[in-house]
This record gives sequence, structure tokens and C-alpha cells, in this order.
Amino acid sequence: MHRYINMEIHSDYQELVSKLKRLDRIDSIGAVIGWDEQVNLPPKSSGLRSEQRAVFTEIYHHEASSTEIGDLLSKIEAVQGQLTPEQVAVIRDARKDYDRLTKIPAEFAARKAKSESISFQAWLKARKENDFASFQPYLEEQLNFAKEEAAIMEAEHPYNYWVDQFDPGMDCDTIDRLFGALQPELKIIVETILDYPDQPDTSIFKGFPIDSQDKFLREVVTSMGFDFGRGRLDTAVHPFCGGHGQDTRMTTRFNEDNPLDSLSSSMHETGHALYEQGLPDEFAGTALGTAVGMAVHESQSRLWENQVGRSREFWKFWEPKYRGVFPQQLQDVSSETLYRAINKVGLTPIRVDADEVTYNLHIMLRFELERRLFDGSITTKELPEAWNEASSRILGYTPKNDTEGCMQDVHWSGGMFGYFPSYCLGNIVAGQLWYTIRDQIPQLDEQFATGNYQPLLQWLRENVHSKGRRNFTLDFTKEVTGKELSTEYLVRYLKERYLPLYTAS
Amino acid sequence: MHRYINMEIHSDYQELVSKLKRLDRIDSIGAVIGWDEQVNLPPKSSGLRSEQRAVFTEIYHHEASSTEIGDLLSKIEAVQGQLTPEQVAVIRDARKDYDRLTKIPAEFAARKAKSESISFQAWLKARKENDFASFQPYLEEQLNFAKEEAAIMEAEHPYNYWVDQFDPGMDCDTIDRLFGALQPELKIIVETILDYPDQPDTSIFKGFPIDSQDKFLREVVTSMGFDFGRGRLDTAVHPFCGGHGQDTRMTTRFNEDNPLDSLSSSMHETGHALYEQGLPDEFAGTALGTAVGMAVHESQSRLWENQVGRSREFWKFWEPKYRGVFPQQLQDVSSETLYRAINKVGLTPIRVDADEVTYNLHIMLRFELERRLFDGSITTKELPEAWNEASSRILGYTPKNDTEGCMQDVHWSGGMFGYFPSYCLGNIVAGQLWYTIRDQIPQLDEQFATGNYQPLLQWLRENVHSKGRRNFTLDFTKEVTGKELSTEYLVRYLKERYLPLYTAS
Repeated sequence: MHRYINMEIHSDYQELVSKLKRLDRIDSIGAVIGWDEQVNLPPKSSGLRSEQRAVFTEIYHHEASSTEIGDLLSKIEAVQGQLTPEQVAVIRDARKDYDRLTKIPAEFAARKAKSESISFQAWLKARKENDFASFQPYLEEQLNFAKEEAAIMEAEHPYNYWVDQFDPGMDCDTIDRLFGALQPELKIIVETILDYPDQPDTSIFKGFPIDSQDKFLREVVTSMGFDFGRGRLDTAVHPFCGGHGQDTRMTTRFNEDNPLDSLSSSMHETGHALYEQGLPDEFAGTALGTAVGMAVHESQSRLWENQVGRSREFWKFWEPKYRGVFPQQLQDVSSETLYRAINKVGLTPIRVDADEVTYNLHIMLRFELERRLFDGSITTKELPEAWNEASSRILGYTPKNDTEGCMQDVHWSGGMFGYFPSYCLGNIVAGQLWYTIRDQIPQLDEQFATGNYQPLLQWLRENVHSKGRRNFTLDFTKEVTGKELSTEYLVRYLKERYLPLYTAS
Repeated sequence: MHRYINMEIHSDYQELVSKLKRLDRIDSIGAVIGWDEQVNLPPKSSGLRSEQRAVFTEIYHHEASSTEIGDLLSKIEAVQGQLTPEQVAVIRDARKDYDRLTKIPAEFAARKAKSESISFQAWLKARKENDFASFQPYLEEQLNFAKEEAAIMEAEHPYNYWVDQFDPGMDCDTIDRLFGALQPELKIIVETILDYPDQPDTSIFKGFPIDSQDKFLREVVTSMGFDFGRGRLDTAVHPFCGGHGQDTRMTTRFNEDNPLDSLSSSMHETGHALYEQGLPDEFAGTALGTAVGMAVHESQSRLWENQVGRSREFWKFWEPKYRGVFPQQLQDVSSETLYRAINKVGLTPIRVDADEVTYNLHIMLRFELERRLFDGSITTKELPEAWNEASSRILGYTPKNDTEGCMQDVHWSGGMFGYFPSYCLGNIVAGQLWYTIRDQIPQLDEQFATGNYQPLLQWLRENVHSKGRRNFTLDFTKEVTGKELSTEYLVRYLKERYLPLYTAS
């Protein structure tokens, strides 16, 4: 009898998994459409593309909220005790996705989506004209939608509901603990750096031809292990990594006077892409074929961009090649000048331009304000003032206006609250992974010095990519590193990387 | 009461039209995926893409065969007498599409699609190895599927069923009449041309850099009126025009030693693209927003490629620019040598390499053999022999082997029977349109000599593109030209264009 029941679970489970895989394939069509929109869409075709997106969303919603999936879930959940831990993870995520799709009325979702796109347009205009007052009603509406959705989903804590959308299992208290420990340490590092009289000279980056930048970064991306056989690298206004593990599409952007931007963007997106290409396709559409969450995803991009891409060992190998590609531009630049320019740290008003040290402070600022918007201790009208106060306190910089202040980021205009913390959590996770990796691969420096990233990639494949989302961020980190998630590793890394460059030797 | 009934029709009709427009939007997503497959797909991503295509086809089929559409059609057809002629055309096409989708069992369609893709692979291999025997069983299966589908659809005449899929309303007897009249005339023209001792010299086309070819043809394509604001031109292995009127995507291909190929392919595809961009989007998904059929579609591509692109007046304007782009390559080439090389006619074994005169003979050969395969007067085993005999009789050339004979084209390997005639019908329609246009725009030559194609495009917009599929090919041609479709115009055009180049002056 027991065996018979197990067989039934097995068959229901297999049927559910095949439906989830089908949803993954449908979703991956949407990914091609989304990539195409950023990379190829003719300017006057955007009306058609919106209609395509709308009908696609409708179809996906219809397929993903089918009663067949709901019935299978209920049948399997009724005998939950007989599932393996991996099956439990699959059912847990499938249930969460299904509930969100079926509990949120289609009418509400459509109204919210429409409002997001109107609000995005209002933000574009308001940011351009530095006119927060014109944007505030839209922001208010986005906040209300976010709260309303959390209420529909019967979330106990509306802001945690949103944090959990991007990084499952994460919550405010954990972030508070981590950011609280990190902030004073960062303050010390930043002060030391900014006080140092001999600052790096980034004016050396002038007139680096785009063709040559492209050629060089493709060599780097290939050496990292990105599989161009099932992926692409193109140019778009904003760098991103999208698509699917079987067809992973990244973008970068070029500026002749800022060659590090295209290179570090590409290494960053390649970090994301390697994760996607390393997820097991046989589990696509289920927790086992999905990234842990945005924090761990971001840890992968940051680890390659920063821990690897800004290291002495990385540049030991690549500097001669870089000089070969840009002989005139670099002929009067010493190795040390180049390396210090690559590792320039400084306060910038804009998050996306920030270095890897101060970046975290930008995130802490946003996290504080998001929480306060959700708990009602500030209103959207009070946001500019609260932003400026917090910016001055946390970052040590008071924005000149709202365009470089509370309107600088796109996220809130599209109702994306709760995403920001993942960026800094990603840095924290990357820091902790980094020391585990260095412990387990003692020859890492020597490998980097010969441009060999295979052992690192192999380690990430085994310990991160192939695992999918069996656990969430905290348990995942503990399992991989053997320790609770802590900021001490990121702090140690930043000190080891930056203090030697900003203190007299 | 009459008014009340009309209102009901009106509302049912509007509902149907909005469902058809929604299907058009879904279909246009498939078009992006299809274009992407030809232009961007990484080599190892083809497995995922097949799965995406399969699930997309399933979804489209599900949406397009919904009982809601069937019910609306029946309700509207019950009061057919109260419809306008335009509404009748819309209902006629919607019914035809709906019946095909609902009468053909999904299981049959899936089996056929799978068999097509296996057969395509077998053809690739057999063509490479010149091994017809290995391909023959697959060809047999494709023919059987085609006959079986015609039987499911209760078609009286299986081959006509397939001709009608590509060119609605067209049939064998009409094609017979037209091809029968054209063939002896072509024979005389071809003999005159081939007998002439002073043949054009195409060896002048050597080492034309691809960048410059691309730059030049984009200027030409822009001057023709292609709207790059809602369209693209990229590179692919095979030139094609796909996408949607609101996002029309063409491709071309480059060969340094054959610059005319990229140019004439681009002008050809632009002819298709202008048609698509000129179809009224407000009627998208209905007969009024759809091309008449493949014959008229092909007439548009041929008219721009040949009647326009090979004319003296066209080259009067473009020759100086062409010389500007390729100064070294053309420095010792006289204008007459260049113009004659552009209009080279000669027997080639391969259809896709053929000039616009002999091309028609290649089609007649295929039409004859397709009919015989359908009426059973030859079997697939007898195809090579029948092909060689017909080729020698019609084209005056006996293929050296089956790779350059009956296996040269992709069409049959994918079950595409009945398409070939459209190519030649397109030439016939283009010839007839051409003289109507010249009558109605007496300054056409002067306009071309200044690179002005606006009046021609305007004429095509008004008389062809904007009309959609109110009528089928024969009625359409009669309405636009005032005369029954006849081959005399194509013959007259070919004589006027080619005989002066191949007879002593």
C-alpha cells in the first residue's frame, strides 16, 4: 500500500514537474522578446511590442494559474511527509508562485502593470526636469499598490513580503543586523581612503576605441568560461543579463573615455550568466533549476567583477594584453598607476557609478527609506527631505537636487520596492564565499596569474550553480561556507584590497 | 427589428475582429522568435528553440481554435446577407483558417511537423552526399502527409488544395493556361540571348568590400521607402523578410565577389517589406490587413528587384554613387559593361541563382513535377529521372546529379508542395502591374533618374498594399490593371529589357 501511494505521488510529481518545465519554456519565449526589446527593437515598433507583451503576460498567467497545477499541488501536499527534501523545495516554490498568480486578481495585476508603465514615464520626465512634485503622486500610487498586493497576499509584514519576492526567505531583521554591522566598518575604510593625499588618476582613460574594448572584453569573458555556444553579448543602453540558461544573453555599453565601464559591466553580467548557464536544465522551471535568490545571484556577478576582476593577479595576466590592445593610450602609464586607477574609490552621488566600497552605503540609504515608506514613518511627500538627511548621514554627501537624490533610481517608479537590499547582500555573500574559495583552492592566485579561471568556475558550478534553490540565502551560505552569513569577510576583503592602495607603504 | 439584428451582427463582428487582432499579436511574437532563430540564435541553443517553437505552436493553436471564435463565426455566417463585401472577405478567411485548425487533428499536425523536421535533416545530408535513395522514403512520407491533409480537409483536388494554401483562389488550370502561354515565348527570348556572341562580363565583380556593399544597399533601401523606424535589415544565411508590418525584419547576405547578390536580395526583400509595412494595421489579423497571396507578394519583391532595380533609369541615378563607393573596383569598367553585367542572363542549374528570364522555366519544371507526384503519374522513386527529362526539355539543361537536380530546393523536404508556382505567378503579376503603373505615372523614368521612388511607392500603397486581401490574385489583378491576368506584359517587359542588350544595335 505504501508503495502504491508512493507511485501515485511519483506520477503526480512528475506531471507537475513537466508542467513547470513547460511554463519555463513559455517564460523563456518572453525572455527572448524582452532581450529583443532592449537590443533590436526599431523605435516606432514599441507600440506593437507593448501589445505583444500584454498578450504574452495574459497567456503566461492563464497557463501558470491553471487548475490542473493547483490540483496536482494539493494532491502532492496531502502526502508531503513522503517527499524527499528536494521535492519539498520544488513544491514549496511551485505553491508560492501558484498562490501569487491565483490570489492576485487579474484585474488588479493589469491595473498595477498599467500604472507602473505610466509612473515610469512620469519618472523619466520628472527626473529630467528635477521636478519631484510632479512625480510624487505616481510614487504614492506605486507604494499603495505594493501595500495593497501585500494585503491581498495576507502578508504579516508588507515590506518583508517584497524583500522576499526578490530574495526568498530574507527579511528586515536579518538585513538590519548585517547592515548594522557593516556600516561603521565601511565608514572607517572610506574615511581612510578619502583622507589619503595621493588619489588614483582615472584621467588616463581617454580615447580607448570601442572596437578594441569589445575585442578585449570578449577575450576576458571567454576566459571566464562564458559559453558563447549558448549565449550572446550585445550592446544596449543598460547592461543586463537575461534569457535562459540554454540561451543566455548579456549586454554591455561602451564609452571611449571609460573603458573600465564596459569591461567591469561585462564581467559583472558574465557572473550572472555563468550562474544561469550552470543551473541544471533538467530541473528548469522548478526550485532545483532556479537561482537561490537575487542576493546569491548578485554575489556571483560581484565576485567576478570585483574579487576577481580588480585583483592584482587578474591584472598580472591581462595587463600585457591590455597594453597590446591600447598601446598608445597606455604608453606613459605605469603598472601601478593603471592598477590604482582600476581600484579608484570615491564618493559619487549616483549609485550606479559607485565603487564597490561606497556602493554599500548607497544601498543602506535606500533600505532605510523603503522601510520608513512602508511603516509610515515618512510619507512620499517627505521623501526628498528624508533622503537628503539620510544621504548626508550615511554617505556623507548631500544631493544638490532630487534628480541626483531620491529620483536617481528607476526601481520605485516601477513599483520595485524591496529589491535594493539584494545588491549589498550580494556583496556580503560574495565576501564570505571568497574566503571559503581561497581556503579550498590554495593555488587560486597562481591560477589567476596565468589567466586560468577553470578551477574557480568548477568550484562555483559544484557549490553554487548546480544546487539551484534547495535552500534560501542564509541556509545556503551556511551550507557552502560552514558559517553563518556575516559581514566580517566583506570587511576583511575590502581592507585587504583597498587599504594598501590608500596608505603609505 | 432589422436595425436590432444589425447591431447584433455589428457587436459579434467587432468581437470576432478583436479576437483576430489578438491572434495577430500572438502570431507576431512567433515572428520575432523565428527571426531571432535565423539572425541571433547561438548554435547550441537550437534545442531550447525547438521546444519554444513547439510550445508556442501549441498555444497559438489553442487560442486560434477556441470555440468562442467558432461560435462567433457561425452566428455571423447565419446573417451573411447583411454583411458588407469587406466583412464577407473577413469572415471568408477567418472561417477558412478556423476550419483548417479545427478539422486537422492536433495529433496529425504534431506528427506532420515532427516528420518535416526529420525529413529536412535527411534532405540536408542526402543533398550533401548526392544520395537521393536515402532521401526518397522521407520525400514519400511528406507527399503522403500532404495528400492525407488534403483528404482530411475534404479537398476535391489535393494539389489545388496546396496551391490555394499559398495563393488563395489559385488553381492548376489557371497556372496551366498562364505557364502554357509563357513557356514558348521564354524559349524564344532565351535562345536569342544565348545565341548572341557578345555576352556580359560578370568577372568585373571581384573584391567588393562587405562594409561598402552594406552602406550602399542601405542607401538604396532607404530611398525605396523602407521605414527603418519600424523595421530592420540584418545578415543571415538566407535572405528573407519576416516579422510584422509594425516591425518588419529583412535579411540579406554578402559575398565580396558577388555584390549584386546582396543588393538585389535587399531590393527583393524590401519589396516584400514595403507591402507588409503598407498593410493597414487597424485590420491586422483579418483579410483586410493581409496580403492577397504569395503571387502578389512576390510581384512586389520582383517589381522592385527587377523592373526597378535592373532598369537603365535606376542605374543612371545610382551608378555615380556606386562608383563612389567602389572607385578602384570599377575604375576600368565602362557604364555599358556595368549595366550589361547587372542584366546578365544565362542558364544555371540552380533556381536560386537564376536570372529573371530563366527563373520562370525553373518554376515550370517544378510545377509539372509537383502535379505529377500528386496525380500519381510519377512516384517519388521516379522523380530523379522525371526531373532530368523535364529539365532537359524545359530548361535545356540536364543536371549532372540529383544534388543539382531534384534535391536542390528545400521546399519538398519540409512538405511544402504548391508554393513554387507563386514565384512565377509573381513575375507575371509584376509584369502586368508594371505597364499599368507606367501608364498611370508617365514621368516614372524621370523620377527614377533622380532617385525618386515616392510616386511609385505611393501608387503601390494605394492600389496594392492598403487593399489587403479583399480579392484573390485574379480578381485583384483585374481590378488594379483593368485586364485579366495575362503573360503578355511579362513577355513584353522581358523583350524590352533584354533583347536590346543581346542583339546587335
